[in-house]
Amino acid sequence: MTKRIAVIAGDGIGTEVVPEGLRALDAACKRFDIDLEYQHFDFACCDYYLQHGQMMPDDWFDQLKDFDALFYGAVGWPEKVPDHISLWGSILQFRRAFDQYINLRPCKLLPGIKSPLADRTAGEIDFYVVRENTEGEYSSIGGRMYEGTEREIAIQETVMSRAGIDRVLKYAFDLAQSRPRKKLTSATKSNGISITMPYWDERVKAMAEQYADVDVDQYHIDILTANFVMHPDWFDVVVASNLFGDILSDLGPACTGTIAVAPSANINPDGNFPSMFEPVHGSAPDIAGKGIANPIGQIWSGAMMLDHLGHADAGKAILDAIEAVLAEADPKVMTPDIRGQGTTETLGRAITERI
Amino acid sequence: MTKRIAVIAGDGIGTEVVPEGLRALDAACKRFDIDLEYQHFDFACCDYYLQHGQMMPDDWFDQLKDFDALFYGAVGWPEKVPDHISLWGSILQFRRAFDQYINLRPCKLLPGIKSPLADRTAGEIDFYVVRENTEGEYSSIGGRMYEGTEREIAIQETVMSRAGIDRVLKYAFDLAQSRPRKKLTSATKSNGISITMPYWDERVKAMAEQYADVDVDQYHIDILTANFVMHPDWFDVVVASNLFGDILSDLGPACTGTIAVAPSANINPDGNFPSMFEPVHGSAPDIAGKGIANPIGQIWSGAMMLDHLGHADAGKAILDAIEAVLAEADPKVMTPDIRGQGTTETLGRAITERI
Ligand SMILES: CC(C)[C@H](C(=O)O)[C@@H](O)C(=O)O
Ligand SMILES: CC(C)[C@H](C(=O)O)[C@@H](O)C(=O)O
Repeated sequence: MTKRIAVIAGDGIGTEVVPEGLRALDAACKRFDIDLEYQHFDFACCDYYLQHGQMMPDDWFDQLKDFDALFYGAVGWPEKVPDHISLWGSILQFRRAFDQYINLRPCKLLPGIKSPLADRTAGEIDFYVVRENTEGEYSSIGGRMYEGTEREIAIQETVMSRAGIDRVLKYAFDLAQSRPRKKLTSATKSNGISITMPYWDERVKAMAEQYADVDVDQYHIDILTANFVMHPDWFDVVVASNLFGDILSDLGPACTGTIAVAPSANINPDGNFPSMFEPVHGSAPDIAGKGIANPIGQIWSGAMMLDHLGHADAGKAILDAIEAVLAEADPKVMTPDIRGQGTTETLGRAITERI
Repeated sequence: MTKRIAVIAGDGIGTEVVPEGLRALDAACKRFDIDLEYQHFDFACCDYYLQHGQMMPDDWFDQLKDFDALFYGAVGWPEKVPDHISLWGSILQFRRAFDQYINLRPCKLLPGIKSPLADRTAGEIDFYVVRENTEGEYSSIGGRMYEGTEREIAIQETVMSRAGIDRVLKYAFDLAQSRPRKKLTSATKSNGISITMPYWDERVKAMAEQYADVDVDQYHIDILTANFVMHPDWFDVVVASNLFGDILSDLGPACTGTIAVAPSANINPDGNFPSMFEPVHGSAPDIAGKGIANPIGQIWSGAMMLDHLGHADAGKAILDAIEAVLAEADPKVMTPDIRGQGTTETLGRAITERI
């Protein structure tokens, strides 16, 4: 059965790494006899905004809603369009409109990638951050009063719903249950954020009752970030609200040294709308156009996409290829950020050959 | 002139480390001819709650308001009293009622303390987190609706005022200006938290105009936590909202390996109410009563208190003594958490002797 993929290269290095992502996908599809059909879209990027005064055409939802997945590069170019416009007009829209309520990011120490942490070896750190991706602290409710005066205040509401919390918890508990360690850590701050976070804790407790075989603990977000640095090996599946998940899913890959190569999956587990796969890194205007961007985040995102489409073996083949090429660490192949003299293409091709 | 200090040992190891804090203070006062007068209080701890059904007597405000400073140990013992009761009934009360709108925490790599980061040496990391300490995400406004049903929601408001933001920014800019690097980093998340954080950014921009000699940058909180791990040497003064500051001021000391020994100052710069000095660590019920708690956080908090009371030289003498004893790293003196067989008292006495 053919799966239809909407490809959105986006801004900056997005346009450079997406072709390498597709190259790797093609190789994996050939090997595992998978049929993907791509359609390319030129919107949801800042150049589109400069021409049309909006990030996307009015009918973007209808154009995209029937695809099986979106394969996104990167968006944002602050000198062209302010971030809050480009992001709320593209990626944050997709997450909400397509109800991609899970943001899943692996934090994994890979061979050949230097971690900023002392004395850690590949295999030792291997966990997922499961982030709530549609509500919580990212609300659009609130405003300002007494504007322009000394008494000015700004108010913004955090909104957490039982349905919104329970569905992300269910996903995270299921994921924990499927892994050997069966461990789930909840990020909270109920000692300080005294209304929404105690509610979060209550729902975690209620959900835990249905998963007797999952080992559950919780940490306040302040000490949890500290423990990511001090004890990253403690974690297996970490579930968090939208904001806490945003923080933890940058911090986790930073601890493993993989922030420039980490992938992310924005998943709608119900399948009524497409899920979206994108690297964690942004559009990197500073190195855009030079052909030296590291394509691994995009390629790894492709692996997560295949996983999601039901081809776990193909996804694993891509990740294995990434690990093999990194372990080899041929400086002629590696991009400059991982101590090589290669290009986006040399690294992309090397990984593709391994698949 | 005699300064009057309210001493609140609090819970757990608070009662063990406070005497060592006082011992070091006494030595510093003697050497620098400072006159401190202590008064001990037995409230603001969980045992008081168990006896009286509240954390503090009704007239706590009047009892404490005229002191020059509060010297606090630690509070909280979840098995006796839920955290949100013990904390909102003590430390979070003090911060608000005494308008301690600055929470100041040093992040400093010390000799003899092992950092979890690779290849970092003492001196290389040395910055302050300046946290807003009275408003923002720690609000008590909000509630629940449709309770107990599938439609249940919890809402909590973040409230930021111009006065509240400007005063913490002013403090942070002044601090940056007083330091050799004159660098200030603002923690934001205006790309996602779209109402309060853009307002925060605006105020930073406005304040920066009055400090032309201070070098200002800003990072979104997600990548900022990553940079604490990857590039802790970039930072000099980091200013943040209540929640972001809470996170960064645990993460920073975690990166320097000093989370168990870090101090914090809750400062009311206007001087109309007492400021409060407390270690970052909690009451540690698991090791309470054993006499092995590390007293450095409490002693260092005493150094910050002397600083605040106008005796920077005495404060520095205490910190120098801490660094000297740590550099020596005599296992007979060090507590178990820093690879020794000593006790709270051996370490406290060793530091005091150096002063
Ligand atoms: C105990 C807790 C409420 C407190 C806070 O969040 O402010 C603590 O983490 C701190 O940083 O002093
Ligand atoms: C760009 C920004 C709005 C976004 C977020 O905060 O969700 C990003 O940090 C992410 O994690 O995908």
